Amino acid sequence: MARIIFITGGARSGKSRLAEKLAESFGGPLCYVATGEARDAEMAERIAAHKARRGETWQTVEEPLNLQEVLREVHGRYKAVLVDCITLWISNLLFRHGTAEAVLNEVRTLIKSLAECQTPIILVSNEVGMGIVPENALARTFRDLAGNANELLAEASDEAYVTFSGIPLKLK
Amino acid sequence: MARIIFITGGARSGKSRLAEKLAESFGGPLCYVATGEARDAEMAERIAAHKARRGETWQTVEEPLNLQEVLREVHGRYKAVLVDCITLWISNLLFRHGTAEAVLNEVRTLIKSLAECQTPIILVSNEVGMGIVPENALARTFRDLAGNANELLAEASDEAYVTFSGIPLKLK
Amino acid sequence: MARIIFITGGARSGKSRLAEKLAESFGGPLCYVATGEARDAEMAERIAAHKARRGETWQTVEEPLNLQEVLREVHGRYKAVLVDCITLWISNLLFRHGTAEAVLNEVRTLIKSLAECQTPIILVSNEVGMGIVPENALARTFRDLAGNANELLAEASDEAYVTFSGIPLKLK
Repeated sequence: MARIIFITGGARSGKSRLAEKLAESFGGPLCYVATGEARDAEMAERIAAHKARRGETWQTVEEPLNLQEVLREVHGRYKAVLVDCITLWISNLLFRHGTAEAVLNEVRTLIKSLAECQTPIILVSNEVGMGIVPENALARTFRDLAGNANELLAEASDEAYVTFSGIPLKLK
Repeated sequence: MARIIFITGGARSGKSRLAEKLAESFGGPLCYVATGEARDAEMAERIAAHKARRGETWQTVEEPLNLQEVLREVHGRYKAVLVDCITLWISNLLFRHGTAEAVLNEVRTLIKSLAECQTPIILVSNEVGMGIVPENALARTFRDLAGNANELLAEASDEAYVTFSGIPLKLK
Repeated sequence: MARIIFITGGARSGKSRLAEKLAESFGGPLCYVATGEARDAEMAERIAAHKARRGETWQTVEEPLNLQEVLREVHGRYKAVLVDCITLWISNLLFRHGTAEAVLNEVRTLIKSLAECQTPIILVSNEVGMGIVPENALARTFRDLAGNANELLAEASDEAYVTFSGIPLKLK
């Protein structure tokens, strides 16, 4: 059974649902690591809707930045850990560090933590590079960074999927 | 032979051409349901180009909102019905109703009509969620809604495809 | 072994890396045709990073517009030619010619040159039509044009791929 699973796809393409299904195949209890923070009503609503969908099997941990530490803390306490989502984490890190290189270093550190952790990990990410090149320079930096991070994380994974209209295609 | 076929993909990725080819495999006469309205010259040109490509086998019906009624009316009169496209229909409905929930209810009603109708139906949709998150709140609502609708419709379909550069990948 | 290979995908999805790997399977020397011009620091940095990644096996030719002439000149001198990327070439041509139809004529001429040239050619393109419809009319024209060009070029190719998070899916 795969230990590190990477899932990418567009907005509302069924990534989280697939991730939850895969996590539940490992049994319970399960840990859901939310990288999104409820900074406004729209965001709070999305988080609440996701939480309501998951049952009692899940414990939710909110961590916008320090995924490595969360992985150390939850290690061995759950049958599987789901991180949702990598793209928001990247966005939080870029906001914090300011440069793409600093963020990619954090991604590389996370990959080392993933290799050490024995618990199955499911990473949910987003494909954000299939639209028109953004006019905004920061959006271009973020788009490139999100793509680079996806490439590094998919390479470090045992299994990878991309979802379309709720249906996964297996990448590896 | 599949009865409900769902096709998604990016702009100009060969979705309509695939849909027409699949519809023509059912014989004729065929019904083309256009959800786009020629509100400006750009749109009128697109509609005319699509129409010119289809031959005499096709009859075109224009309906921006009430797809359920169109399906009732065309029932049994054609070998297959092609709806092009779902994303514009969603956009028209959001403009009319104002809330995502009201639009999703219309999607659920359409799915019931599809289940009752015996004529093969080919639904053309669009993938709009693989770019950068839009700054505009309405665009975000629309993007999420289009994704949710695609997920519901693909689930209700017997066959589904995503197209890239004119080439379909079978999703189910 | 395929002679014309077409690769599409989102920004930073591993297209160039795949293209380089495929080209290197033909042996050396190899020709890299860059359609991007270093008009600003951001662009210069990207070009330098790509160039640094490729080894001594590669010679780089910069040509923003006249790909047909480049193909004539390099003919028979390399084991394979990599064009990176078609989407920038399309953008350069649209800027030069002003209309989509003129650009599509250039694409059709390129396809004839590809058919005559005996050297293996690898074309790197981009998927730009899977985001929200751009508000800007020129961006919409470009997006449609890029999609149409991808469709024509993929059809003329012996092999085609789409990449996600560094992993290729074979289209044909």
